[in-house]
Amino acid sequence: MLRFLTAGESHGPALIGILDGLPAGVPIDVSQINMQLSRRQKVQGRGGRMLIEQDEVEVLSGLRQGVTMGSPLCLMIRNRDHVNWQHVYGPEGGAEPVLRPRPGHADLPGMVKFGFSDVRNVIERASARETAMRTALGSVARQILAGIGVRIFSRVLSVGPLALCDLPKNELEWSQAQGQPLGYPDAARMVEAEELLRQAKEAGHSVGGVFGLVAFGLPPGIGSYTQSDLRLDARVAGDMCSIPAVRAVEFGEAFALSAAAPGTPGDSIVMDEGRLNYEGNINAGLAGGMSTGQPLVVRCAVKPIPTAMPGLTVDLSSGEAVSAVKERSDTSAVPAAAVVAEAVLSLRLLGEIIDSMGTGYFK
Amino acid sequence: MLRFLTAGESHGPALIGILDGLPAGVPIDVSQINMQLSRRQKVQGRGGRMLIEQDEVEVLSGLRQGVTMGSPLCLMIRNRDHVNWQHVYGPEGGAEPVLRPRPGHADLPGMVKFGFSDVRNVIERASARETAMRTALGSVARQILAGIGVRIFSRVLSVGPLALCDLPKNELEWSQAQGQPLGYPDAARMVEAEELLRQAKEAGHSVGGVFGLVAFGLPPGIGSYTQSDLRLDARVAGDMCSIPAVRAVEFGEAFALSAAAPGTPGDSIVMDEGRLNYEGNINAGLAGGMSTGQPLVVRCAVKPIPTAMPGLTVDLSSGEAVSAVKERSDTSAVPAAAVVAEAVLSLRLLGEIIDSMGTGYFK
Amino acid sequence: MLRFLTAGESHGPALIGILDGLPAGVPIDVSQINMQLSRRQKVQGRGGRMLIEQDEVEVLSGLRQGVTMGSPLCLMIRNRDHVNWQHVYGPEGGAEPVLRPRPGHADLPGMVKFGFSDVRNVIERASARETAMRTALGSVARQILAGIGVRIFSRVLSVGPLALCDLPKNELEWSQAQGQPLGYPDAARMVEAEELLRQAKEAGHSVGGVFGLVAFGLPPGIGSYTQSDLRLDARVAGDMCSIPAVRAVEFGEAFALSAAAPGTPGDSIVMDEGRLNYEGNINAGLAGGMSTGQPLVVRCAVKPIPTAMPGLTVDLSSGEAVSAVKERSDTSAVPAAAVVAEAVLSLRLLGEIIDSMGTGYFK
Amino acid sequence: MLRFLTAGESHGPALIGILDGLPAGVPIDVSQINMQLSRRQKVQGRGGRMLIEQDEVEVLSGLRQGVTMGSPLCLMIRNRDHVNWQHVYGPEGGAEPVLRPRPGHADLPGMVKFGFSDVRNVIERASARETAMRTALGSVARQILAGIGVRIFSRVLSVGPLALCDLPKNELEWSQAQGQPLGYPDAARMVEAEELLRQAKEAGHSVGGVFGLVAFGLPPGIGSYTQSDLRLDARVAGDMCSIPAVRAVEFGEAFALSAAAPGTPGDSIVMDEGRLNYEGNINAGLAGGMSTGQPLVVRCAVKPIPTAMPGLTVDLSSGEAVSAVKERSDTSAVPAAAVVAEAVLSLRLLGEIIDSMGTGYFK
Repeated sequence: MLRFLTAGESHGPALIGILDGLPAGVPIDVSQINMQLSRRQKVQGRGGRMLIEQDEVEVLSGLRQGVTMGSPLCLMIRNRDHVNWQHVYGPEGGAEPVLRPRPGHADLPGMVKFGFSDVRNVIERASARETAMRTALGSVARQILAGIGVRIFSRVLSVGPLALCDLPKNELEWSQAQGQPLGYPDAARMVEAEELLRQAKEAGHSVGGVFGLVAFGLPPGIGSYTQSDLRLDARVAGDMCSIPAVRAVEFGEAFALSAAAPGTPGDSIVMDEGRLNYEGNINAGLAGGMSTGQPLVVRCAVKPIPTAMPGLTVDLSSGEAVSAVKERSDTSAVPAAAVVAEAVLSLRLLGEIIDSMGTGYFK
Repeated sequence: MLRFLTAGESHGPALIGILDGLPAGVPIDVSQINMQLSRRQKVQGRGGRMLIEQDEVEVLSGLRQGVTMGSPLCLMIRNRDHVNWQHVYGPEGGAEPVLRPRPGHADLPGMVKFGFSDVRNVIERASARETAMRTALGSVARQILAGIGVRIFSRVLSVGPLALCDLPKNELEWSQAQGQPLGYPDAARMVEAEELLRQAKEAGHSVGGVFGLVAFGLPPGIGSYTQSDLRLDARVAGDMCSIPAVRAVEFGEAFALSAAAPGTPGDSIVMDEGRLNYEGNINAGLAGGMSTGQPLVVRCAVKPIPTAMPGLTVDLSSGEAVSAVKERSDTSAVPAAAVVAEAVLSLRLLGEIIDSMGTGYFK
Repeated sequence: MLRFLTAGESHGPALIGILDGLPAGVPIDVSQINMQLSRRQKVQGRGGRMLIEQDEVEVLSGLRQGVTMGSPLCLMIRNRDHVNWQHVYGPEGGAEPVLRPRPGHADLPGMVKFGFSDVRNVIERASARETAMRTALGSVARQILAGIGVRIFSRVLSVGPLALCDLPKNELEWSQAQGQPLGYPDAARMVEAEELLRQAKEAGHSVGGVFGLVAFGLPPGIGSYTQSDLRLDARVAGDMCSIPAVRAVEFGEAFALSAAAPGTPGDSIVMDEGRLNYEGNINAGLAGGMSTGQPLVVRCAVKPIPTAMPGLTVDLSSGEAVSAVKERSDTSAVPAAAVVAEAVLSLRLLGEIIDSMGTGYFK
Repeated sequence: MLRFLTAGESHGPALIGILDGLPAGVPIDVSQINMQLSRRQKVQGRGGRMLIEQDEVEVLSGLRQGVTMGSPLCLMIRNRDHVNWQHVYGPEGGAEPVLRPRPGHADLPGMVKFGFSDVRNVIERASARETAMRTALGSVARQILAGIGVRIFSRVLSVGPLALCDLPKNELEWSQAQGQPLGYPDAARMVEAEELLRQAKEAGHSVGGVFGLVAFGLPPGIGSYTQSDLRLDARVAGDMCSIPAVRAVEFGEAFALSAAAPGTPGDSIVMDEGRLNYEGNINAGLAGGMSTGQPLVVRCAVKPIPTAMPGLTVDLSSGEAVSAVKERSDTSAVPAAAVVAEAVLSLRLLGEIIDSMGTGYFK
């Protein structure tokens, strides 16, 4: 059983994650973790905070001479901005409370949940900055998966109303697009995407979009049909929607499939070099809550960041209608969400493979 | 903590479910459980099996004089068809093994997972018949939720390429459509839907579709932003995709929202009779992984049932390409999946409210 | 991950258990399950109820032609006494409420927990009759363990103040004592034990005692030292104390070991036919929260059944001090608790081996 | 649900703990956490390592201006000794592998579990140093419990063959003994205890012993009788045996109770100032797997530390019988284990109260 907990507020001392249940004896390259953190920060669509934080992990446990020990792995990312937030976190305080809960954020239900009168208590943990740590832990999982031949890619498919590309057709296409500008390799589309984000940024607006995500090389039979909470599709769907701005998930092109004309043919099972395999992948790598061995394909819809069009709210001290604060934010969460989704999927798949195979599978 | 396990094969002696962690002292009407089972069986789109099974629960524990005792509640549904399956289940056996794994089903990965040579071992548990028990348990959860003012409805929005209606706009519309024919109240649309299903059935085809699902009356602050696996949106998305044919889930109209033009306004927070409330529900009742108190709205895409267009497979004894068996199946899983989704959502919401409030909240 | 839930009230329709996560392809002998139920019922020290119930399981799921399918296994034991309890369970009721909570039982804290005014609601589920289902599920686990060479035995070591024997020294002694009268093979001790129980029964008294429990053949490295809640010793100790009358657990003779003179030597590691092994078993088969491969040995203390000396209580209707009701009960829970402990240990060990090795280990 | 994970190797960079699910709005005094760490380090019986480490926590998350935020709380303790272990942990390595697994420790089963050839990989995480972090997290739980009137104490009852005192009779006795020398207030016994430890230390021996532990002020009905894994007694027993050297646990004086003569009276329920209460506490504050509201009393047996009498082992490189390494270690783990047990019990009780009451109970 692979488990993890993360901790850390957006402007607190640090983000921390503990990942428990790893196989032993697998080399982990810390520079790759930092590279993933950098990808998450440097993708298009990010706002000003990303210039302040240049995330780097410190490994606090679980590795010896660069190799997993089977014991819990702990990573820490110091928040460089914390020094500027002593008046908010320090014992004497002095910071003004935040009294204008923003619609579309955790602010109001978070206050109700915990009985807070200062929205700051919610904002600090509800921030999407939490996903930096999941990105770091996911990089560890991904490196271990690579050792058994599982490869994960993502791609932004649209930003706002602008469609950029279809789901890539094969691993080559997925891998070539990885880390390229939005719309790659269509030069005109790349310009359009740049322009849309530039205009939105100027106007202080935000755009949503859709990204695709794939895992190649999964062994078949991961997950289970025997109990509903063990289904791999259920777990992956839940994971995707745990990424703050992701509001929809479909396996392959499920909405299109649901609208197919009666009689549209499905996949086939064929004998392929002496092994049973699938022809076609309408089922997106999943059947009966398990991996089929075909590429596992997910599409996720990301909403615009509500801070950019904050709308009206109520000032808690006066009870009056006011504009919600327009905080520094990203122009689009889509590119960063795609990077986070790769990490989150890595954590899930590693956990599921361990559950099915035991940690001995990785020796 | 609310937990449940279900058990039972499609043609075995019975389906069974244990629901652990219920509040005590709540009256449960067993006829309502049977009514939900009947809704699941009698909706449009079902196949011939449903004429054999007329599901009724036997309450084996957890109720005394019709009231919950706080102890685990156990329900059983006998499979009336079991008497005809003695040659498959009985100690002497005699049934031919199933040797043609169907694409799109659990058959092949299930065999790999457990090392089976007879697909029958997979089919029997992987069957969607399992959802009957979740429907029954969910009816118990729903009755308890009703006592604190939570109301749940679903509606089929499309079947195959035929759009039937938009998401209802308010509780009145949701409640009026409940239990009505597909396309209600548009008479022409109702005829179209009937005709589409009739033709598909005649041709032996199956159609997918989309259903909507809503919960009114949720208290705000259910779920949490503090740890990613505690988010209500993540859990609900996972639950939806645990329903066999559901392949996509979106909160509200998230795909449309992701494609909105930059600058599209969001929800507002307003003072409403002395209480903070939301105006608009673009966020579908969710913010920061918690309920906002607005209606929680979900849309789910359901795939066509692959058995109806089984495609090719390989005969495991001969290694030859053959047609996959075309089993008796539903013309469309959408209407039944919507009923199951109501139950599954009920179980989730009850569990989350118990986690946030304790079981004492229901006294 | 092996999980189970049980359900069922003492005089309700049935006891039910669902065991989820079993390996597939293992033959299960139902007559052995019934034999374990019979052992639990027929051991010395039992009271009158055991003449009414002659427990037999019905297998509701998870087996096909006597072999595990990998899907959840469900067992049911009908309560034959239920027909006599319609006035308590039936919709019209008519039974007098129980108003005298018994000290030493769940009665009073259970009422507080759930807000009951009728103690009957607590008694029915808090009854040790629940252990019948764990005994049945444990027999399934034990049969699977037997297939990989794990053997489990128990022995009553004392009843009340009467010491019967020491912990057996080897598997032969454990196995020979299994199912024999208390004190076996010392004829005089057997007579003494019989006499003590006879006198206690006549006087309406109850006696506690101590039993030993052992598992031979465990692979080393089961459990873990990496996270405190994964330790095998922690889990086994918790399991033992989940058996209603068990109030203490020690690994091997830990209280004696804790009082050893400084410098008492411990176990050694030796080369044994080319494999590393232990000499001595002071550590009772456990080190660092893992199995060592040596016999896992547990001693458990069982309290007298408080119903037999019920003491004073308060009548809830009058507020007056009264005698607690002296219900029909066992003279000693020790022999039955030992049988239950075998089953509970079987469930734990099977679960731990699956977690460490995967279900493929059992193929 | 209160959850925690710890991480950290004995000589790695740091120990870390994340505690998830805390109520919000509770002030936490960090100096009290450090005081508990100091108690754990400075009690009698400790070895030389304790002079190197003077544990202090850094709060990395979860507190703002000294008050819990409802978000995960993360503590870190830097290992001051780490700078001296670069050759073991650093990327170039250079440290000799440990090739002599010590009996009585995790060494051998840990190697088997993970397939290690260097015992160092096991030793570093299996070290009892892990309990420092549980002590720190437990101090947070304890401070929150104090706010609702729960008080926890421990006392060493014996060291090796030397009995020091009986279980204290009331809260005054428990509280007066807290932090006092072993045997307090009996001056002669205090001298004897000092002398026994001094002699054992000189001889390089280790002694076990027994400690008692109590929680006053628990609300009744915490835990549950409804499912075996929810029982408070089961969970507390498991927790105690998760403390490395603890090998036995009994509630109250359960072994003595199990040997009581037939007819020994039990507790009574009485009306006490208008409320139902218990007279006597034979049941040690527990009934039916729940708290009764009486003091919850536990006795734990601690084994001698096997490193002090390491016995024989096998050198893995030569296959020859050799003496196991005699590492620097404590003379007795009992006093430190008692401090850890207070912390571990605090974490458990806080978690159980949250599960029963919700986090709102602490507002």
